[in-house]
Amino acid sequence: MGEIKPLPYFKDRYKVDLVFYVDEIVQVLQDRFSQHGKPVLFLLYGKSTDSGNYSKPASFEGIEKFDTDLGTLHPILTECRVIKSEMELGLIQYANDVSSEAHIEVMRQAKPGMKEYQLESIFLHHSYRYGACRHCSYTCICATGENSSILHYGHTAAPNDRTLNDGDMALMDMGAEYNFYGSDITCSYPINGKFNSNQATVYNAVLKAHNAVISHMQPGVKWVDMHKLAEQTILESLKNEKIIHGDIADMMTRRLGAVFMPHGLGHLLGIDTHDPGGYPEGLERPKEPGLSSLRTIRELKEGMVITVEPGCYFIDALLRPARDDPVSSKFFNWEEIEKYKSFGGVRIESDLYVTAQGCKNLTNCPRETWEIEAVMAGVPWPPRASVTKAENGLPKA
Amino acid sequence: MGEIKPLPYFKDRYKVDLVFYVDEIVQVLQDRFSQHGKPVLFLLYGKSTDSGNYSKPASFEGIEKFDTDLGTLHPILTECRVIKSEMELGLIQYANDVSSEAHIEVMRQAKPGMKEYQLESIFLHHSYRYGACRHCSYTCICATGENSSILHYGHTAAPNDRTLNDGDMALMDMGAEYNFYGSDITCSYPINGKFNSNQATVYNAVLKAHNAVISHMQPGVKWVDMHKLAEQTILESLKNEKIIHGDIADMMTRRLGAVFMPHGLGHLLGIDTHDPGGYPEGLERPKEPGLSSLRTIRELKEGMVITVEPGCYFIDALLRPARDDPVSSKFFNWEEIEKYKSFGGVRIESDLYVTAQGCKNLTNCPRETWEIEAVMAGVPWPPRASVTKAENGLPKA
Repeated sequence: MGEIKPLPYFKDRYKVDLVFYVDEIVQVLQDRFSQHGKPVLFLLYGKSTDSGNYSKPASFEGIEKFDTDLGTLHPILTECRVIKSEMELGLIQYANDVSSEAHIEVMRQAKPGMKEYQLESIFLHHSYRYGACRHCSYTCICATGENSSILHYGHTAAPNDRTLNDGDMALMDMGAEYNFYGSDITCSYPINGKFNSNQATVYNAVLKAHNAVISHMQPGVKWVDMHKLAEQTILESLKNEKIIHGDIADMMTRRLGAVFMPHGLGHLLGIDTHDPGGYPEGLERPKEPGLSSLRTIRELKEGMVITVEPGCYFIDALLRPARDDPVSSKFFNWEEIEKYKSFGGVRIESDLYVTAQGCKNLTNCPRETWEIEAVMAGVPWPPRASVTKAENGLPKA
Repeated sequence: MGEIKPLPYFKDRYKVDLVFYVDEIVQVLQDRFSQHGKPVLFLLYGKSTDSGNYSKPASFEGIEKFDTDLGTLHPILTECRVIKSEMELGLIQYANDVSSEAHIEVMRQAKPGMKEYQLESIFLHHSYRYGACRHCSYTCICATGENSSILHYGHTAAPNDRTLNDGDMALMDMGAEYNFYGSDITCSYPINGKFNSNQATVYNAVLKAHNAVISHMQPGVKWVDMHKLAEQTILESLKNEKIIHGDIADMMTRRLGAVFMPHGLGHLLGIDTHDPGGYPEGLERPKEPGLSSLRTIRELKEGMVITVEPGCYFIDALLRPARDDPVSSKFFNWEEIEKYKSFGGVRIESDLYVTAQGCKNLTNCPRETWEIEAVMAGVPWPPRASVTKAENGLPKA
């Protein structure tokens, strides 16, 4: 494993006050903290509001010589994680810069005949070789054609192994991680580089929702309202295109937005892709379709980093029950929807930092259809000044 | 996660006799195997002779309705894994073909000024994009300069982050995995593409050992004897170069080979990089330096796949005690060894299949110093007919 580094190395690297070797822990804690009796160790133990699982508190040989407190630390540390420091923001911005560039590289190389996993490989390579990002925040979702309506595509049993066809849409949900801080970005585009009419319809519906949410975000705004704004914007676009008809407010009451967008609008992002703190003590997860998938329903606060990721999908398993229900069925133009049967879906996802007055988009990918078509045809995409493709090393972090 | 595939899909894909959904397991087992009373389930449970840990037997809700046998299956399945079928060999050969090509790609792109992790990224990308290998068998060891004497370099605390210098040796231990079957290959070469005299000395000592072992391998040969053959070959070369002096047999008795090669000659390879079966019931791990690191001491059998990976390293932590010991100290020419102080080390590793008459090398990398220099200068390396760089898909497996 190599030589053991001296203690000052770790003190300097991690900017901590005291450093000791692990096998000294019992002695050091006893020597330093026994003035007022048996020392109390505050351990991190709490429930993930996403999985329902509990975090495993730290342990070591001899821990029974101390009192432990399992309740105090978790809510405090979780709240610390919700509001990002400048240094944390810098890391998330860097991961976003690298991922944005890597997405553009993938976009440019994608061609009919390739395999989805080859796009994954290009993303990973670009992020690591040029961005020093050894890991991604999550398994890459490289979904094309019908697969783009499978929200968690890309896992071991569906390992991005489809061949890309002319006429497919691609939904690329990939984010690099740097020094443990993640990014989470989705780009959707036609594999052949040109949006056809149906593709542009669905894409623009989602983009309008994405932009509407971003333009409304600021401290004090309720995230549930942003989710509903995205749903409503998408429903309005689909109504304009005669894919659905009837009263939008009525559809919203019946939660029909969730037929097209069966996931939450976004989630906190940081050390975890789905960062904790979405449901602090007292906030309960909603029960209604769509809203029940929200990983937070908090009010926005300055310093939060949160994803904005509206989507519109044509999923048989959700359209079928909507059609079978006599009340919801009448809102849908089933003849028109038939044309989107094997369309899949579109998602557009950016990472937003909430500022005092509004928000800042940390993601820098082409979003307008004409921008995407131009970038895929080789037009340069303005790189941020902070990103260099230097072959020779880690950025000055 | 996508639609659940129908049962016949799994029956065909995994070539099994019967397929049911997981939630039917209790019912199906009871219905089909209760004729003679409570059915007995043979579960896989046994000790890893490497880690000392025990495998966790399979479990499911309702397993208490059955009798379980934890002892029968493990030795039988382990022995099945020691001898590879033709289909298994095909997968290991494919993983070797992809990895050999990827190593050559890395070799060609390596230049002073790059970072070690960039070589890792090139390997991963080549294996995935062109070989459909999503995973590697183990974390890539991309060690250059002094790092090449750190046997398990590349881990999270030493993440291949050094800058490549002109004059460094590189020790690249990387292997792609395909359909769960692995490869395990090490190439060592000078970063600037030209061996200097000291580099050629150490490299050729190791290559001679690598080739000597391969030329002796056949069913019935004891692996401990191969390990000793490698040690002896290396010691002889070092003696010719006046790095050590004295009687080789004497050095062997004193286990001084382990000062330069403090790891085993090789290990079984398959589903696991360190495949099980190295120490079946009755075989005890040796205690002597060097030999104690052997992951097997078996006799070779037709159908085994085993790595041959001799190495020669200059490790301060091992040379120091050898110097402090008045008896061993006199075998070393300390003035000469001083010249190799920051040399690091060399390892050459190939994957061998034991045949009825001898063995077959599954790895296809340039090994002679002149071959390596030529390949690094751009001379084509003869690809095997079985390997294609087709962009468009998985090989017909």
